[in-house]
Amino acid sequence: MLPIPFLVLLLSSILSPSSAADFCAADLSLPTNPAGFSCKKASTVSTSDFVFSGLGAPGNTNNIVKAAVTPAFTTQFPGLNGLGLSLARLDLAIDGVVPLHTHPAASEVLLVIQGSIEAGFISSSNTVYYKTLSEGDTMVFPQGLLHFQVQSGSTPAVAFATFNSPDPGLQITSLSLFGSSLPSHLVEKVTFLDDAQVKKLKKVLGGTG
Amino acid sequence: MLPIPFLVLLLSSILSPSSAADFCAADLSLPTNPAGFSCKKASTVSTSDFVFSGLGAPGNTNNIVKAAVTPAFTTQFPGLNGLGLSLARLDLAIDGVVPLHTHPAASEVLLVIQGSIEAGFISSSNTVYYKTLSEGDTMVFPQGLLHFQVQSGSTPAVAFATFNSPDPGLQITSLSLFGSSLPSHLVEKVTFLDDAQVKKLKKVLGGTG
Amino acid sequence: MLPIPFLVLLLSSILSPSSAADFCAADLSLPTNPAGFSCKKASTVSTSDFVFSGLGAPGNTNNIVKAAVTPAFTTQFPGLNGLGLSLARLDLAIDGVVPLHTHPAASEVLLVIQGSIEAGFISSSNTVYYKTLSEGDTMVFPQGLLHFQVQSGSTPAVAFATFNSPDPGLQITSLSLFGSSLPSHLVEKVTFLDDAQVKKLKKVLGGTG
Amino acid sequence: MLPIPFLVLLLSSILSPSSAADFCAADLSLPTNPAGFSCKKASTVSTSDFVFSGLGAPGNTNNIVKAAVTPAFTTQFPGLNGLGLSLARLDLAIDGVVPLHTHPAASEVLLVIQGSIEAGFISSSNTVYYKTLSEGDTMVFPQGLLHFQVQSGSTPAVAFATFNSPDPGLQITSLSLFGSSLPSHLVEKVTFLDDAQVKKLKKVLGGTG
Amino acid sequence: MLPIPFLVLLLSSILSPSSAADFCAADLSLPTNPAGFSCKKASTVSTSDFVFSGLGAPGNTNNIVKAAVTPAFTTQFPGLNGLGLSLARLDLAIDGVVPLHTHPAASEVLLVIQGSIEAGFISSSNTVYYKTLSEGDTMVFPQGLLHFQVQSGSTPAVAFATFNSPDPGLQITSLSLFGSSLPSHLVEKVTFLDDAQVKKLKKVLGGTG
Amino acid sequence: MLPIPFLVLLLSSILSPSSAADFCAADLSLPTNPAGFSCKKASTVSTSDFVFSGLGAPGNTNNIVKAAVTPAFTTQFPGLNGLGLSLARLDLAIDGVVPLHTHPAASEVLLVIQGSIEAGFISSSNTVYYKTLSEGDTMVFPQGLLHFQVQSGSTPAVAFATFNSPDPGLQITSLSLFGSSLPSHLVEKVTFLDDAQVKKLKKVLGGTG
Repeated sequence: MLPIPFLVLLLSSILSPSSAADFCAADLSLPTNPAGFSCKKASTVSTSDFVFSGLGAPGNTNNIVKAAVTPAFTTQFPGLNGLGLSLARLDLAIDGVVPLHTHPAASEVLLVIQGSIEAGFISSSNTVYYKTLSEGDTMVFPQGLLHFQVQSGSTPAVAFATFNSPDPGLQITSLSLFGSSLPSHLVEKVTFLDDAQVKKLKKVLGGTG
Repeated sequence: MLPIPFLVLLLSSILSPSSAADFCAADLSLPTNPAGFSCKKASTVSTSDFVFSGLGAPGNTNNIVKAAVTPAFTTQFPGLNGLGLSLARLDLAIDGVVPLHTHPAASEVLLVIQGSIEAGFISSSNTVYYKTLSEGDTMVFPQGLLHFQVQSGSTPAVAFATFNSPDPGLQITSLSLFGSSLPSHLVEKVTFLDDAQVKKLKKVLGGTG
Repeated sequence: MLPIPFLVLLLSSILSPSSAADFCAADLSLPTNPAGFSCKKASTVSTSDFVFSGLGAPGNTNNIVKAAVTPAFTTQFPGLNGLGLSLARLDLAIDGVVPLHTHPAASEVLLVIQGSIEAGFISSSNTVYYKTLSEGDTMVFPQGLLHFQVQSGSTPAVAFATFNSPDPGLQITSLSLFGSSLPSHLVEKVTFLDDAQVKKLKKVLGGTG
Repeated sequence: MLPIPFLVLLLSSILSPSSAADFCAADLSLPTNPAGFSCKKASTVSTSDFVFSGLGAPGNTNNIVKAAVTPAFTTQFPGLNGLGLSLARLDLAIDGVVPLHTHPAASEVLLVIQGSIEAGFISSSNTVYYKTLSEGDTMVFPQGLLHFQVQSGSTPAVAFATFNSPDPGLQITSLSLFGSSLPSHLVEKVTFLDDAQVKKLKKVLGGTG
Repeated sequence: MLPIPFLVLLLSSILSPSSAADFCAADLSLPTNPAGFSCKKASTVSTSDFVFSGLGAPGNTNNIVKAAVTPAFTTQFPGLNGLGLSLARLDLAIDGVVPLHTHPAASEVLLVIQGSIEAGFISSSNTVYYKTLSEGDTMVFPQGLLHFQVQSGSTPAVAFATFNSPDPGLQITSLSLFGSSLPSHLVEKVTFLDDAQVKKLKKVLGGTG
Repeated sequence: MLPIPFLVLLLSSILSPSSAADFCAADLSLPTNPAGFSCKKASTVSTSDFVFSGLGAPGNTNNIVKAAVTPAFTTQFPGLNGLGLSLARLDLAIDGVVPLHTHPAASEVLLVIQGSIEAGFISSSNTVYYKTLSEGDTMVFPQGLLHFQVQSGSTPAVAFATFNSPDPGLQITSLSLFGSSLPSHLVEKVTFLDDAQVKKLKKVLGGTG
C-alpha cells in the first residue's frame, strides 16, 4: 500500500510553484498592463471564474442597426485573462447589420447558428471576400481587416464570433468618422466624402466638430 | 474630379508589399514548419479558403463514446493558417462523453448550443473546476490541462469548441495509455493502475505491448 | 602566444549552428509562411541585404492625394525578414494627404523630418487623438487603429514611418469601400452612406459592383 | 586623454531607460499577471537574484515513488522571471519513478547526469517514443504531451530537466484523477476505468468524491 | 432617421471592454513587469501620451565621443508602452563615433538624415557587414549583434534609429569592460587584452577593480 | 465491451489534424525561415529525433582557452526545432575560460556539475553580477548581455548551459574584434583600444584588415 504522507510531501514540494502557470483569472480591480490583468490569488479562484452564462440570451436588437453584440471578453469573463481567446454573440433581426468594422487586436471566426448572414472582408489590396453563410457555416476575418455582417433571408440570425485575444477591440468605421469629435473638414479630407454627407451622418451618429 | 491613374499609381507603389501580411491561406501540399503551412500565392486565394461549411451537420455519434468531434483546423480550413484560432463541433448523444484529454497547444472555450453538458478541468494543484453547462453557457479550459465533457440531462447535446491555435492538438489520456504501444509494465509503473485493469483496457482500446 | 588552429577548432565546433539565429535575409523566390520568407543561404548573404537606399529620394507626389509613400518592407529590404521592423518614407506636397487607413499588422511611429503634418488616430471608443506635428516631432499610432496624416503649413512635408513588423499591411478605408468590388448596396448598408455618395466615389476611385 | 565627465554625461542620457529591458528579477510580494511577476527595483537587485544553489543537494526519495523533484522556478529563483526558462533536479532511487505527467506551459529537455533512466512520451496520435537514457543523454518532451521517467539499471539516477518557461506547470495524471475531488463516477466515465480500480487508487492517493 | 440613443446603447454594450486593447500608455509610477509598464486609466490618457517632441533638437556632442544619443523609449514616450517599437536620435559631430555596442532586446534600423555614417555589424560567425551610408540610406542591425556608427565625410551627421521594442537596451562594450567594476584580471582573462591596456582604459572610462 | 472500430473511427476523424501541433522535428535539408526548420513528415520521425547523446563525453580542452563547448542545438538535435529550448556542455580544464560573449537570441541558465566556475554578466548600466559557482549552483545570464565563465579551484569543471531558443547564437567579443575582417582603425575607433593592442591580437586570433 502506498503511504499518503510521503506522496503529499512529494507533491507539496513540486506543485506549489507550478499552479501559477495554469491560469490567471483576472483581478479586475487592479491596473492592467500590455499582458492583461493581474491574477487573482489562487485561493479566491472558483469555477465561476471559468464559466460565463451571458451568451445564452439574445441581445436587444431594437435599435437602428437591428443588431446586438454581446461580448464575453475579459471584463465579463475573468477566466479568459492571459489565455488568448474570447467570444461574442451576435443577434441580427430582419435587416440587421453589424456595420463595417475592424478588430485591431485579433482575428475572428464567425459561426452561424441560426438564419443566414451575408458576411465579408476586404483585403489590403482591396479584394473583397464575401459570401452568404448558412447555419453551421464558419468564416474567418483576418486580424485588423475591414469586415461586416448583414442579416440575409427571411428569419433573424444568430452567430457566435470567436477571437484569438481576450480583448480583441472593435472599431466601427462610421462611428469613428461620424460619432467622434474629428472635425468635418478633416473627415472629408481623409475620406474624399462630401461635406453634406459628413454633416448629415455626424448629426445622426452624434459626432461633433 | 480625381484622376484615377494617379491614385492607382499611388496604390501600386504602396500596396503590393502589404498584402502578404493580411493572411496566409495554407498551401497544404508544402511542408509545414513551427509557424504553420506555407501561404498560397495571393492570386489563387478565394473566398472558399476563408469559409468552412463542415460544422453544420452533426457528427456520427454511433460509437462507443456516443460522441463525435468535427474539427475545423488548418487542414480542413486553410484560411486559418497563421491566424491563431480554430474551432470544432462536438455532438454528444445521450450518455455521450468526450473522454479526459488535453490540447497541448491551445486553450479552449466551449459554448453549449443545445442540451446540457457536465464539463470540467483539473489544475496542476489537483483542484477540480466543473459544472453542468446549459444552452448558451461557456466554459474555458486553460492550455494543456486535463478536461472532459459529458452529456447531461434528457436530450442530446451540441457544443462548439474554440481554440487559440489553428492546430490545438488533442491527447486523449486513456487512448494514450491503453491504445498505444506503451508496454503494460510501464503503464502500470507510471500510473499505479493494476495489471488486470491495464490489460483489460488495452484489449478494448487496441493497445499493444 | 595563442596558437590559432586550436581556437579555430573551438570556433568551428560552436559557431556553425549559431549563425542561423543571427538573421534571416529573405529569399524572395520561395513561398512565405506566417513567420515570413525563407532565409537565403548564409554564403549568399552580403552587406547589400542589410542596406536599403530607396528612401533617400522623394516619392512622386504628382497625384490626386499629393502624397507618396515609399516602403522599405521585406520585399524591398530582404534583411528585415524575421526581425520585426520596417520603415516607409512619406512625402506630402502642399495640401497632400495620406487618407484614413490602418496597418492591420503593426503599430507605427511617425517622425516628421521637414514641414508640418496634422496627424491623428481614432480609438475603439471613438476618441480622437490628433495634433499638428513639427519637425522632430514623433507620434505613435497603435496597431490596427484608423489614422491619417495631412500636410499643414506653407511647405511640403517629409516624414518617416517605422513599424514593428517587416510587413505591416496598409488598408486605406476609402479605397476599400470605393475602389473595390464591394456592391454599392452593401457599402451603403454597412456604412450608412448615401447611394449617391457611394456611386460618385466609386466612379472616381475605380470601384465596381 | 578622454575626460570622464563628458562620457558619463553621454551615458546618463542613454542608459537609464534601457536597464529595464535587461532583466526583471521577480518581486514575489506583488501580484502576478500573464507575463509573470513585477520587477524588483533595479537598486535592490543583486547577484543573489541570479544565482540559485538549491539544485546541488539530492532531494528526499524516501517516499512511495522513490523520486524527488527539486524545482528552480521563479518562486525559488527570482532572476528567471520574464526570461523564458527554468530548471528542476530529478533524483530517482532504485525503482524510482516520476509518474506520467505533462507540463502545460513548457517543453522539457531531460539531461541524465548519473545512472540510467527509461523515459518516454506519447504523441497526440498515440505513438510512443521511449528509450533508456544513459549518462550524458538528453531527451526532449514536447510541450503538453504525456511523459514519464523511470529509474533503470542498478544505481540511483540523477537528471536535470530544463524548461522553456519560468513556470512550466506540472500535472501528474494519476494525482489529477485519484488525488482530487473529481467524483468517482466521473473519473470512470471519462477514463473507462473500473469502479473498483478508481476507488482503490483514490484511497491511496487521497482523492475524495 | 437614425435614433441616437439606441445606437449609443449598442455602443456602450460593446465598446467598453475593447478600449483596453487599443493601447496602454505607461503609468510610470507603478512597477513594471516583463510585459512593460501598467496602463494609465483611459480617462487620464491624452494626445500628449502619443506625441513626443524630444527628437527635434540635436543632442550635445561636446563630449569625448563627439556623439549624442537621444532616446524616445517608454520612459520618455509613455504611449509606446506595449506597442513594440521605439526610436532614438543620433547626432555625430566631425569624428563622432557611437562605440561598439549591442541592443540586447531589439533589432535596429538606422536611417541617415544628414551627412555620411560608416556603419556595420559583426555576425556570430565573425563576418563583418559594413558600409558608408549616405543621406536616405537605411541599414539593419539584427538583434543582439555588435555594431557601430562612425561619422564619415566632411559634415556632421544626423540619423534616427528605430527599434522593435519600446525598451531595446544598450550595452556599450568598452564601457562594460572598462567602465564597470569587473576586476582587471578577469577582464584580461576573458578578452585576451594586455594588463596595461586594460588599466589604461579603466582609468579613462571610470572602471574599478 | 467497447467495440474498437467505432472508437478508431472517432479517432481517425479527430486526431489526424492534431499531430502536426505536437512537435516539428527538423528536416535539415530544407531552407529555414524565422520560425526554424521545416518539419519532417510524421511517418519518418522516430525516437532518435528526440534523443541526443552527444553531451555525454567531454569536449577537447586541449586548446588555447582550455575550454570546450559542445552544442545540442537544432542542427545536432532535430527534435528541438520549434520547441524553444536547447543545451550545451561546457568543459573547462584548469585555467580554462569561455571568453566574454553574448547569445543574441536567448537567455541562458548555467548549471555546474563538477568543479567550480567563476561566472558573471554585465548589465546595460555596467553593473557586474558575478560569483564563484560550486557544484549544483545555477546562474542565469539574461538575453544578449555580455557574460563569461572561468574555471576556478583545483579541479577541471563541467557545466551545462540551457537556452530558451533552439538556436541561441554565440558572439565571442574578442573574436568579433580580432578574428574578423573589421579594419584595425575601425576596431580602435569603436573600442578606444590602442593600435598595438589591436594588431597584436589580430595576429593571434586571425583577424585581417
